Amino acid sequence: MSKDFLYNEIANGLAGQINSGVLKPGDRLPSVRMLCEKHKISMNTAKRVFLELEAQSLIDAKPQSGYFVSRRPYPRLPLPAVSNPSTLANNNEPDELISRVYANMGNDALTLFSVGAPSGDLLPLAKLKKEIVQALRELSGGGATYEPLQGNVKLRNMIAIRSLAWGGNLHENDLITTNGGMNALSFCLMALGKPGDTIAIESPAYPGVLQLAISLGYKVLELPTHPVTGIEIDALKKAIPHINLCLLVPNFNTPLGSCMPEAHKKEIVTLLSKHHIPLIEDDTYGDLYFGTQRPKCCKSFDTTGNVLWCSSVSKTLAPGYRVGWVAPGKYKEKLLQLKLVHALSSPAIPQEAVANFLKTAKYENHLRQLRRTLQDNYQHYIHAIADYFPEGTKTSRPQGGVSIWVEFPAEIDTAVLYDLAIKQRISIAPGRMFTLQDQFENCMRLCIGLPWSEQIKLKLKQVGNLAKRMQTG
Amino acid sequence: MSKDFLYNEIANGLAGQINSGVLKPGDRLPSVRMLCEKHKISMNTAKRVFLELEAQSLIDAKPQSGYFVSRRPYPRLPLPAVSNPSTLANNNEPDELISRVYANMGNDALTLFSVGAPSGDLLPLAKLKKEIVQALRELSGGGATYEPLQGNVKLRNMIAIRSLAWGGNLHENDLITTNGGMNALSFCLMALGKPGDTIAIESPAYPGVLQLAISLGYKVLELPTHPVTGIEIDALKKAIPHINLCLLVPNFNTPLGSCMPEAHKKEIVTLLSKHHIPLIEDDTYGDLYFGTQRPKCCKSFDTTGNVLWCSSVSKTLAPGYRVGWVAPGKYKEKLLQLKLVHALSSPAIPQEAVANFLKTAKYENHLRQLRRTLQDNYQHYIHAIADYFPEGTKTSRPQGGVSIWVEFPAEIDTAVLYDLAIKQRISIAPGRMFTLQDQFENCMRLCIGLPWSEQIKLKLKQVGNLAKRMQTG
Repeated sequence: MSKDFLYNEIANGLAGQINSGVLKPGDRLPSVRMLCEKHKISMNTAKRVFLELEAQSLIDAKPQSGYFVSRRPYPRLPLPAVSNPSTLANNNEPDELISRVYANMGNDALTLFSVGAPSGDLLPLAKLKKEIVQALRELSGGGATYEPLQGNVKLRNMIAIRSLAWGGNLHENDLITTNGGMNALSFCLMALGKPGDTIAIESPAYPGVLQLAISLGYKVLELPTHPVTGIEIDALKKAIPHINLCLLVPNFNTPLGSCMPEAHKKEIVTLLSKHHIPLIEDDTYGDLYFGTQRPKCCKSFDTTGNVLWCSSVSKTLAPGYRVGWVAPGKYKEKLLQLKLVHALSSPAIPQEAVANFLKTAKYENHLRQLRRTLQDNYQHYIHAIADYFPEGTKTSRPQGGVSIWVEFPAEIDTAVLYDLAIKQRISIAPGRMFTLQDQFENCMRLCIGLPWSEQIKLKLKQVGNLAKRMQTG
Repeated sequence: MSKDFLYNEIANGLAGQINSGVLKPGDRLPSVRMLCEKHKISMNTAKRVFLELEAQSLIDAKPQSGYFVSRRPYPRLPLPAVSNPSTLANNNEPDELISRVYANMGNDALTLFSVGAPSGDLLPLAKLKKEIVQALRELSGGGATYEPLQGNVKLRNMIAIRSLAWGGNLHENDLITTNGGMNALSFCLMALGKPGDTIAIESPAYPGVLQLAISLGYKVLELPTHPVTGIEIDALKKAIPHINLCLLVPNFNTPLGSCMPEAHKKEIVTLLSKHHIPLIEDDTYGDLYFGTQRPKCCKSFDTTGNVLWCSSVSKTLAPGYRVGWVAPGKYKEKLLQLKLVHALSSPAIPQEAVANFLKTAKYENHLRQLRRTLQDNYQHYIHAIADYFPEGTKTSRPQGGVSIWVEFPAEIDTAVLYDLAIKQRISIAPGRMFTLQDQFENCMRLCIGLPWSEQIKLKLKQVGNLAKRMQTG
C-alpha cells in the first residue's frame, strides 16, 4: 500500500510537470536509474512510474534513448460553461427521445456510445461465474429460500469495511441491500417525500433519476452545475426554501464526470442537515477514479444521519446481478419497511457471489485494471474528439467514471445527429435526455466504457464527420 | 397425460363416494384386480389409485385383506362465517403485532407455523443448483450484463405456454418479469392509482398487500369474503361506486385458501371491466391445487385487457430467487416504464435457471409431489386440530395453497396466544395481521408447508393446549 502510494506520488508529480508545461513536448525524462536514486525506490517501481505515464499518453519510450515527453500532449478542449437551467421546474420529459435511444440499448450490432456502464468485455466474467458456483455451496438451501429482509450480512459487512476508503465508518447494520442501484434510489425517493414535493438535482443528470422523480410525482429543480466541481453551492443555497429533498451524484456523475471538492461536500451536508432536507447521495461511480485516491463521500461528513448513501456494483462489476445497497442513516426503518412491502427480500445468490468477490483481493485488482482502462480510454477519446469533431467542440474533463460530456457548436442538434448516426450503426445519447428542460440540445454523452480499438476510433470519426456535415448544411 | 387423467378420475370418484357416505367407514374397497377390469387400466394404475386414497387418509391397507374405508374419516370442522368487515376503510394497521411476528420469521429454532410458503425441505434444492450452473453456461456474459427490460424471453415464453393450463392464452410479449411476486403487485398498484384512491380487497388478506396499499397512500376497502368461494360478489357490486381498483387472490388465497368458482370470476371480470376498474389478480398459489384440475384465472375471462395477472415461483419453487412476473394487459407500457425507473432490469441468472427448470418435466413432477404433500399435510393438520384444539374451533377448507385459517372460540385472543406459544418455540400468525380493522382477534393462520412429523403434531397439540388454558384461565 505504501509502495503503491509512493509510485503514484512520483507518477503524479511528473504528470503535473508535464501538464503544467514545466516539462515540454520532446523533453527527455530522467532515466530509470536516476529516478531510483532520487526517490530511493526499486528499479521495478521506477519502471512502473514510466509505464503509468506512458499509459496516460504523456510520454513516449524511444528505444536505446529513454523516455521523452510526448510530442502530442493530452489535448485540452475548452470546458462547457456551468449549466444554467431555469429555476422553474417545468418537468418537460423527453419521453419520445428516450424511448428512441433506449430501444437500441441492447443491440449488439451497434456501437453503443449511448450506454452508461462499462462493456461486458471489461468485467471479470469468468471469475464471477466461479463465485456463483461457490455461492451455491455456501448458501443454506442453495439460495432458493428467503434471505433476511436487510440483505446478505457478509455483503453488508464487506461494504462497511470498504467504506473506510471514502471516509465512511459504516457498520453492516447501517446498510440495506437492494435490487441494484436504481432500486436504492427509488426506495429513498419513496421514503422521503410525497407527490408535489420538490427535489433538487444536478443539471445535466442521469435520465433514470429524472424519470423516477417524475414518476413519483415530484417537481424536479435542476440546479447549475460546474463540469469539474459539480453542483453550484450558491444556487443550492438560494433553492433551500423551495426544496424538500436533494439528490446528488458527487463523485464522477454521469454525464459530466464532475467531482465535488471535499469542502463543497462538507458545506452541503451541513447546509442540508441544518434545514432538515435529506440528501440522497448516489455514489455508483465513486470507485472509478482516474487519480490516485478514492474521493470521499458526502456521507463521511454526515453527523446527523441525514445522508442516504447509495451505491451498487452495476458500473464496476456485474450490472446483470442487480446488487445495490443504501446506508439510509436515520431513515433506516422507513427504508426497511419499503423494501418489505415492495420486494420482500433480495435475490440471495448474486449477493453472496458479490460478497465473496469483494472479500478477496480480486475486486481491488479488477478495479485497478478497470480504472486504468477507463482512464486510457478517456485519453484516446479526447484525442479523437480533438482530431475529428467540429471546431469549437467542448468537453467535460471527468476525473473518473464512464462518460464524457460533449458540447458541440450551438447549431448542431444532437437529436438529429442521433438519427444520422444510427443509420451508420452508432448510438449516441443526446444531451436533451439528461434534463427536463429545453437545454443541452447541442450536447451528448459518450460512453468510454467500450474497449478501445481502431474500430472505435473510426466510429468516433464518423460521428465527427456527421456533425461537421450538419454545420455546413 | 390421459393416463394421469384416468387415474385421477377414478381416485376422485372413490373419494367422492367416501366423503359423501356412499362408502362407509370399515367398508371394503374393490380389489386391485377388480379395479383393473372395471376401468380397463393396468395394475400399476390401479395401485396408484389406492396409494392416492391412502395418502389422503381416506382408506387403510390391511395386509392380506385389501383396502378399507378409513375408520377415521376426514374430520369436517365447522366453517368460519363469511367475514363481515366494516365498510369504512379505517386502515388501522397492526404494525406492532406484525413487527413482533416478522422478527421471528427466519428463526430456525422455532416451529414456524407463521410463514406463508412451503419449507425449504419441500423444494427441489439440488436440482435448482444444477440449473444455476447451467444458466451460467447459457447466458451471454454469464448473466453479469444487463438483460432486456421486459425480462428473460425464455422464461416469459415458458410462462406463456403454461398459461394454457388455466385458460390463459398469453404470448411472451404479454409478460414482464419482476423481482418476485410482491414486486409485481407493487408495480401494479403504483401504475393504477394515486394516494387517496380506494382499493377493494378480500378480508382477511395477505398482510404484505395491506401494507403495500397503505404505504402507497391507498384507502383499503376490505370486503366480505366466503371461506370457500372467496369474495362476495354482491358486496363488490355495492362497492363499485366507491373504489378505483381491485386486488383479488382468486385461487387459494392466503390465509383462507378459498377458490372463487369460475362463474364468479367471469362475473367479476365483466363487472369491473364495465366500470373501468382495473383488476389485479394475484395467482401466486394457483398451481398448488389439491384437486385434479388447475383452476382458471380471472385473466382467462379478460377480453378488454383490464386484468393484470401476477404470479411468481416464490411459493412453488424458489422464494430466494425473487422471480415473479405480471401480464398487465392494456397497462403494459405503464408497467414497463415503472420497471425501468425503479429497477432498470431483473437479475439475469435466477430467471434463466427458472426458465430452464420450467422447460423440462422437472417442474411438473415437482409440483405434483408438492401438491400431494400439502394436501396430506392439510389432512394431518385437520385431524390434529380436531383432536387437540378447543371445542368450537372452526377451520377453512382450503382446496389448495399453503395455509389453513383457524377460528377459535371468541374468548381466545390470538395475539396473546402468540406470546404464549413463542415461549414454547412455536410461532403462529394471529388473525389481526390479516386485516386493517378490529376483527379476526380469535383467528390465526397455520402454515401447512412444513414437512409433517410427530414433532409437528406435538407442536399443534401444544398450541391447542395453550388455547384451552386461555379459555379456563
